[in-house]
Amino acid sequence: MKSPKEGLDSFIYPQNSIIPVTHRPDKLFKNIEDATSRVDEFIFKLMEAREPRVLYDAANHIIRAGGKRLRPYLVLKSCELVGGDEGAALPFAAAVELLHTFTLIHDDIMDGDELRRGVPTVHVKWGIPIGIAAGDLLFAKVYEAILKGSSSPPDTILRCLKRLTDAAMAICEGQILDISFPSAADVTEEDYLRMIGLKTARLFQASAEIGAIVGGGDAKMVGLLGEYAYNLGLSFQLVDDCIGLTSEEEALGKPVGSDLKEGKKTLILIHANKMASPTEWEIIGRILGDRQASKEDLDKARIILEGLGSIDYTLNRAREYAERARKILDNLPRTDAREELLRLTEFVVVRRT
Amino acid sequence: MKSPKEGLDSFIYPQNSIIPVTHRPDKLFKNIEDATSRVDEFIFKLMEAREPRVLYDAANHIIRAGGKRLRPYLVLKSCELVGGDEGAALPFAAAVELLHTFTLIHDDIMDGDELRRGVPTVHVKWGIPIGIAAGDLLFAKVYEAILKGSSSPPDTILRCLKRLTDAAMAICEGQILDISFPSAADVTEEDYLRMIGLKTARLFQASAEIGAIVGGGDAKMVGLLGEYAYNLGLSFQLVDDCIGLTSEEEALGKPVGSDLKEGKKTLILIHANKMASPTEWEIIGRILGDRQASKEDLDKARIILEGLGSIDYTLNRAREYAERARKILDNLPRTDAREELLRLTEFVVVRRT
Repeated sequence: MKSPKEGLDSFIYPQNSIIPVTHRPDKLFKNIEDATSRVDEFIFKLMEAREPRVLYDAANHIIRAGGKRLRPYLVLKSCELVGGDEGAALPFAAAVELLHTFTLIHDDIMDGDELRRGVPTVHVKWGIPIGIAAGDLLFAKVYEAILKGSSSPPDTILRCLKRLTDAAMAICEGQILDISFPSAADVTEEDYLRMIGLKTARLFQASAEIGAIVGGGDAKMVGLLGEYAYNLGLSFQLVDDCIGLTSEEEALGKPVGSDLKEGKKTLILIHANKMASPTEWEIIGRILGDRQASKEDLDKARIILEGLGSIDYTLNRAREYAERARKILDNLPRTDAREELLRLTEFVVVRRT
Repeated sequence: MKSPKEGLDSFIYPQNSIIPVTHRPDKLFKNIEDATSRVDEFIFKLMEAREPRVLYDAANHIIRAGGKRLRPYLVLKSCELVGGDEGAALPFAAAVELLHTFTLIHDDIMDGDELRRGVPTVHVKWGIPIGIAAGDLLFAKVYEAILKGSSSPPDTILRCLKRLTDAAMAICEGQILDISFPSAADVTEEDYLRMIGLKTARLFQASAEIGAIVGGGDAKMVGLLGEYAYNLGLSFQLVDDCIGLTSEEEALGKPVGSDLKEGKKTLILIHANKMASPTEWEIIGRILGDRQASKEDLDKARIILEGLGSIDYTLNRAREYAERARKILDNLPRTDAREELLRLTEFVVVRRT
């Protein structure tokens, strides 16, 4: 699995973080990679190729291309925090990563994206039919991971499956809201936060809740960890939108500015729509939804968005949600796992990929 | 829900059936419709529209357009046969129909089909992105139907979920085999039967097994009912391929000959490839994979396929599998439910839609 090699200096905006950066993000990357290596083993075994080979190759493509493994990490650390055994959490950690990967493959088709984690997207490499089926197979594997892999008590498994299934439905709803939002002028900040809540934060929440449930945490702990992870997910997505515009293709693993070119109504754009002069908005509007927009036009738009403070505004909102997540952790037992979940609240706002 | 209005006379090949036709197929249609009306109620309630409305409209489209409801009927009757309560089977009956519908929506995108159950396919009406998401939502709803709707013991639910999940993976594998088969000359009858086993018969099997499991049937009964339904499913699919070529668009609810135009390697074609003269095969080959093929060319190919005995050959294989299914029922208790499952073995080979 590829892992980011950059040092702290190259991470964006650490100097603006309202949260003290006490840990090197690249070190956290390494921690996450170590912690989730057994999850990867579990996934690779579950996803071993069968006939038809092309289906399994396609389904494995994005998993093998890397990824931060944040969601399985949330499962493992939430389980650990409530005093549970990692082994019990493993199938569930695999399941949330499989669910995430399935949605990436289908979203890439829906959004027409051609690059993901530095490799061609599944439908670009194998065509849309295989892309659809590979996503469907991974969705089924989410359940197989748990149904075949878990030895937790049946009612515990059912509680976790409910949360996973709810998160899957939320992701479908969020994705369709995302691609069917009207013009930026008609989308409010609240609409946007609801959308990323469904599309991103609900699976973060489910991951932490599931970890806490299989670890034997009580209802209060499950609730707190879920709330922590929901806020973390919102923060993560807001930063993701900023990185997608300010980073470079090599670090991103996908083209810069694709949200703008696809006409996505991010919070950056919603803010800019309120702040921009007609001339500025005209320049931004030129590339909105134009997949052929030139690098020059994209740069112009990005400079305007920076000038309007729209990226800073979005990052500040991200920091607020990370701060909320951090505060929720105060109510949980002081353990190594809590410390690592705390680091995540820093990581999400200082990361550059 | 639409229901076929045709009388017995218009059903294909009843005179050739090796199974005595003791019941009017149209009456069986009515029986199935009555038996599954509570399943439909359950599904409609589960699928009640939420935001984003377009996603739920799209996901409901094919369910509302009709369908034979054979799979939920198998769940209900298998449950009844082993002495179980219909109420316990209801969420599972809904789940198998939701799973079937999800695969139809995605298959229609993969196959480029434009008509289904007499209405435009989901991606034709709403576009591919909504089609993908509508299928994904239905897939999640499969699990929601059971996780929220079932009050069976947790370990019973888990056993059923395993079978459903296995069937879902089989369908993905079968669909990719189907669309990636090489030329008819390189596909054997065995390859083809394995493919429809995965794509169609495994969900028939899972439906009957699940019905027997929630009904409290012992392992032997679960096994026998599964074996019955697997053979029924093979028979069903073989007849489906014939009907797709010999029926009319109005009765089919989709264009005649679409398998040929899409280059699908049905058993009809595999048989014809062995029997045809070079000239005959040249005429058939003209329309294979040609979506723009004219009605005249299609008629010519159909007449050749009939002349070669390829349709009769396929129907005879279908009758053999229906006969196997019928014989398996002899090992099960003589009940009204068994009688209805017996009628299904007649129905699948004499139906015309």
